[in-house]
Amino acid sequence: MTDPTQDLLPEGLEDRLPQSAAAAARIQRAMLDTLHAYGYDRVRPPLIEFEQSMARRMEGVRTRGCFRFVDPKSLRTLALRADMTVQVGRIAATGLADAPRPLRLCYAGQVARIAGDMLDPRREYQQIGAELIGSDTVAAASEMVELAIAALEAAGAQGISVDFTLPDLVDTLADGPFPLAPQQRVAVRRELDAKDAGALVEAGGEAFLPLIHAAGEFEEAAGKLSSIDGAGVLNTRISALRQIAERVDSRARLTLDPSERHGFEYQSWFGFTLYADGVRGALGRGGTYCIGGSDEAATGFSLYPDGLVEAVKAGEDMGRRLFLPVDHDPAAPARMRAEGWRTVAALSAADDPAALGCTHTLENDGPRPL
Amino acid sequence: MTDPTQDLLPEGLEDRLPQSAAAAARIQRAMLDTLHAYGYDRVRPPLIEFEQSMARRMEGVRTRGCFRFVDPKSLRTLALRADMTVQVGRIAATGLADAPRPLRLCYAGQVARIAGDMLDPRREYQQIGAELIGSDTVAAASEMVELAIAALEAAGAQGISVDFTLPDLVDTLADGPFPLAPQQRVAVRRELDAKDAGALVEAGGEAFLPLIHAAGEFEEAAGKLSSIDGAGVLNTRISALRQIAERVDSRARLTLDPSERHGFEYQSWFGFTLYADGVRGALGRGGTYCIGGSDEAATGFSLYPDGLVEAVKAGEDMGRRLFLPVDHDPAAPARMRAEGWRTVAALSAADDPAALGCTHTLENDGPRPL
Repeated sequence: MTDPTQDLLPEGLEDRLPQSAAAAARIQRAMLDTLHAYGYDRVRPPLIEFEQSMARRMEGVRTRGCFRFVDPKSLRTLALRADMTVQVGRIAATGLADAPRPLRLCYAGQVARIAGDMLDPRREYQQIGAELIGSDTVAAASEMVELAIAALEAAGAQGISVDFTLPDLVDTLADGPFPLAPQQRVAVRRELDAKDAGALVEAGGEAFLPLIHAAGEFEEAAGKLSSIDGAGVLNTRISALRQIAERVDSRARLTLDPSERHGFEYQSWFGFTLYADGVRGALGRGGTYCIGGSDEAATGFSLYPDGLVEAVKAGEDMGRRLFLPVDHDPAAPARMRAEGWRTVAALSAADDPAALGCTHTLENDGPRPL
Repeated sequence: MTDPTQDLLPEGLEDRLPQSAAAAARIQRAMLDTLHAYGYDRVRPPLIEFEQSMARRMEGVRTRGCFRFVDPKSLRTLALRADMTVQVGRIAATGLADAPRPLRLCYAGQVARIAGDMLDPRREYQQIGAELIGSDTVAAASEMVELAIAALEAAGAQGISVDFTLPDLVDTLADGPFPLAPQQRVAVRRELDAKDAGALVEAGGEAFLPLIHAAGEFEEAAGKLSSIDGAGVLNTRISALRQIAERVDSRARLTLDPSERHGFEYQSWFGFTLYADGVRGALGRGGTYCIGGSDEAATGFSLYPDGLVEAVKAGEDMGRRLFLPVDHDPAAPARMRAEGWRTVAALSAADDPAALGCTHTLENDGPRPL
């Protein structure tokens, strides 16, 4: 009975205790309220789906990272969701196939993966996001970047920054002024990701070398990118980025890393990553994409607020707690709760208001600070 | 690509589309706000735990109903939670072992089970609950029944009724005026559950026969129960029930089914089931119990709001949606959202406000109804 390992949680899974759970709940609510206010309707997909149906909408690869198990009912393999975006894509393509476009949907829930990574050992996390389905225009992308920033602001994130990228940059240049054979494209992408100048040249990607140095503060990096692109094949892209940037540059620090592809394997022309001061790693990412299986254009983002929760939980406000002594006026508690108090009723005369975390006690003339 | 079965969800699992998801979100929020206002702090256990650790706090039996799978990290069996109460019990016995008692905790989340049942085929549902740990007194039981009713009222449930029971009634009577051998107790409990008078007499439980007819409107049933109990071994119990009933009888219809045990296998002296008009089946249940593994006394309840969601979703208010034409004043949307409007921005001049579900469109002098 006293073996403490009996109560250990599996690696990468944890309990949120009151301060931390309160921060997580407040942040989720603030984010969802923002998405709601921008016209996004919530949908709730199930925790579990057939692996096959998820794989189809994920281009078949990422279910390898899901917890999978056989359904005793259907004898088919089920997967615990590791990403809600694909589920929302499925809903758009099935239950909401006939809903008018652009379709604005949002979601929030827990997701799990079988393995954490070096940067983040968590195997369960909160995902909150919005998808604008039926459009991947500059207007759609601008709305999504603005909305992601607004959701983070509402949740209390400070010093938000947004890093833009052009996920199909190598293909666009290789189809135009800097031709590459198919196998060279793969190598060039890989070495650009690694930012390895020597290997990039060896792979035949000399013309792409300046991209490694075109990352940084948005306006400067966009200027560099423009100057690399003598033929002007990127003009539309750069102009789109500038329009998106203009919409949000008063609310976030903007950077551009045009050849960054990590995490954007499924994005088309536009991607962005969100950061905030004091939060380790990215808080979210988004971009333009095609819904797997239906090939409908969409723009969306996912926020992963667990890092923000960790950053703020120690200071989370748990509210004013009013102790109700055993002999309190029975009409008082409902009135006090309506005024925003949290009430803690004594179960016996031995209950100690201070030990129970109360800030006030109810007396005949009202709350008295402890 | 057009095989519709590819997108089927497994039996008992479903998507909540916007109306239904909005109702579920509103109901969950109203319930959690109520628990918060009564001084209950939220905790968030993980979706998955070691099966062994869950089994230990569930008296080892109920994990058979959980989805289980091997953790590639630890090579141990994990279980997807089917009940959050046991997780909250674990938290009280571990991470919050040193927190002062009575400890008030609440929770909300998705749970899943491998098989639905005849009455409810759902295999995933929402569970929201509160636990008062370190006390199973009449005061604790009264607080929990009142709180459960308050949470249902806040969520919009109409015509709430509460059915009380005494889970250890047979044992209490068999230890006193109506002695039974151990194997007879099992049979008497079973036939009382089945309300089978003939089999009850055959099992040697003739003395228990009047219990079958002691169910009904609370005051009347409590009177009948009292008259059955000539020796007075139930006096304390009946008096406790009357105190609890007095606290809530203005807010709910009260009934008593003293020998009802279904769903109360783990409860000690007190149990209750919650119903509301227009909702199929029970909306929740609660009672007094001991936390498995630590044997600490507790009183709690779980609400299962999915039935309420189904009952109200068709009428769920989706809010006033304000269409923002392409050339709208850029300062207006934030102001309108602050006033409680949901805004839907045109992405192109072709967007049709009525098709997008908008109720109003923004003109120079403000919102105009469509």
